[in-house]
Amino acid sequence: MTASLTKCKSVLITGSSRGIGLQLLKQLAKSTDRPATIIATARNPTGSKELQELSNTCPGVYTVTLDTDSQQSISSALKEVQSIVGSKGLNCLINNAAINISTDIDTVTPEAMMKTFQTNSVAPLFVTKAFLPLLQTAAGQSTGMGMHRAAVINISSILGSITYTRGEGANFKSYAYRISKAALNMVTRCLAADLGSHGILCMALHPGWVKTDMGGPLAELTVEDSVSGLLTVLSNLTDNDHGEFKDYRGNNIPW
Amino acid sequence: MTASLTKCKSVLITGSSRGIGLQLLKQLAKSTDRPATIIATARNPTGSKELQELSNTCPGVYTVTLDTDSQQSISSALKEVQSIVGSKGLNCLINNAAINISTDIDTVTPEAMMKTFQTNSVAPLFVTKAFLPLLQTAAGQSTGMGMHRAAVINISSILGSITYTRGEGANFKSYAYRISKAALNMVTRCLAADLGSHGILCMALHPGWVKTDMGGPLAELTVEDSVSGLLTVLSNLTDNDHGEFKDYRGNNIPW
Repeated sequence: MTASLTKCKSVLITGSSRGIGLQLLKQLAKSTDRPATIIATARNPTGSKELQELSNTCPGVYTVTLDTDSQQSISSALKEVQSIVGSKGLNCLINNAAINISTDIDTVTPEAMMKTFQTNSVAPLFVTKAFLPLLQTAAGQSTGMGMHRAAVINISSILGSITYTRGEGANFKSYAYRISKAALNMVTRCLAADLGSHGILCMALHPGWVKTDMGGPLAELTVEDSVSGLLTVLSNLTDNDHGEFKDYRGNNIPW
Repeated sequence: MTASLTKCKSVLITGSSRGIGLQLLKQLAKSTDRPATIIATARNPTGSKELQELSNTCPGVYTVTLDTDSQQSISSALKEVQSIVGSKGLNCLINNAAINISTDIDTVTPEAMMKTFQTNSVAPLFVTKAFLPLLQTAAGQSTGMGMHRAAVINISSILGSITYTRGEGANFKSYAYRISKAALNMVTRCLAADLGSHGILCMALHPGWVKTDMGGPLAELTVEDSVSGLLTVLSNLTDNDHGEFKDYRGNNIPW
């Protein structure tokens, strides 16, 4: 199925200065059926040359400073985004910003656990809460469920699947990361339960094991292929996907 | 099946000054086939009259101060427990200490999320890591899997089941608690993957919705019935239960 995001007027991506976030931005900005407004947020947008170039050369691409760990930064970003999207609201929030601190049973520390949980699980919840009025505004202007109306997409990981953390699936040791992504999956489900009746679709996506700074050079997938898959999944979202956990090929992943 | 814990020589329970922890201690201490050594830990054991009475009247019941949120307190408790169990090591660690901060989508705060995650998810991991040498000592003296050898039991909750956080299952709103228990379930699975080869069984248990300070008066189950069920499940543990999530009746719960 060909991806079509024509009916999605606006999308916001967190952590878009590199990796999957930057690639989402690139492919969205260059697609013919792109959302008119694409908001790229990052802790330090001016630090990324590619991000700056994209926002300078592609109309409708905005960069906004957002440190998702800071409530103050979230509040400032909200005001800025509000003035960009105006009365149309925001159709899609992609919570992509995340960290990975490599931790096995010997090296894991309480500090690594707390820091990873803050950025990977807590921040997406509070970014979503903050942007909820804009998502509700967009949801109020349409019916059904999907990118044309309003959606919260949490970039999770198959490493957060508790079911798969067994046998070979448990070989990749990463306590803090796995635990934070399982927690994010529960965030997704709690939000899905509360926001579904507002017409806001919530789901978790696994981008695959991707050759990025985080995924490392041994990863299976190029970031281009991963993101092309993710965008196809996003463009075809319906109410059947609400509250689900899917990979970049559209396959469901067990919790 | 009748519960028999005769072959389990020692058990340690965290958060045993009230609720399910205190009841576990009571029923264990008074059973005819009880472990010889029962170690009741709490942040402030002298603050609980019942705890003091039990340790004064039941031989082999020890109270140890343990604030599971503090690495320093964990280290002190470890030394004390080491001197109690000696060369036999510790057969069973029950990570029961937990908190619940009532939080729905409107009232949840980053602070409530972090605090609950620290106590309910991070602390059980670091208590387990600290007591690992004692569990390994016990595991080295037996074969098979179960309470007779070595086990880490994480008291989780059905509210941590991501699968069940949907429809009616999502009606009870408790963001911080649900997320912390889903995270604890991943802690359990990561530990199961790492400790199974050492002969240490790891699993998560749901005690039911229990009439305690945490569960409230509307809960379905008396703490006596819940704990009696939990102890039956514990006494019958085999390698089939390793890495699983079960309720107090022995039924598996989906992640």
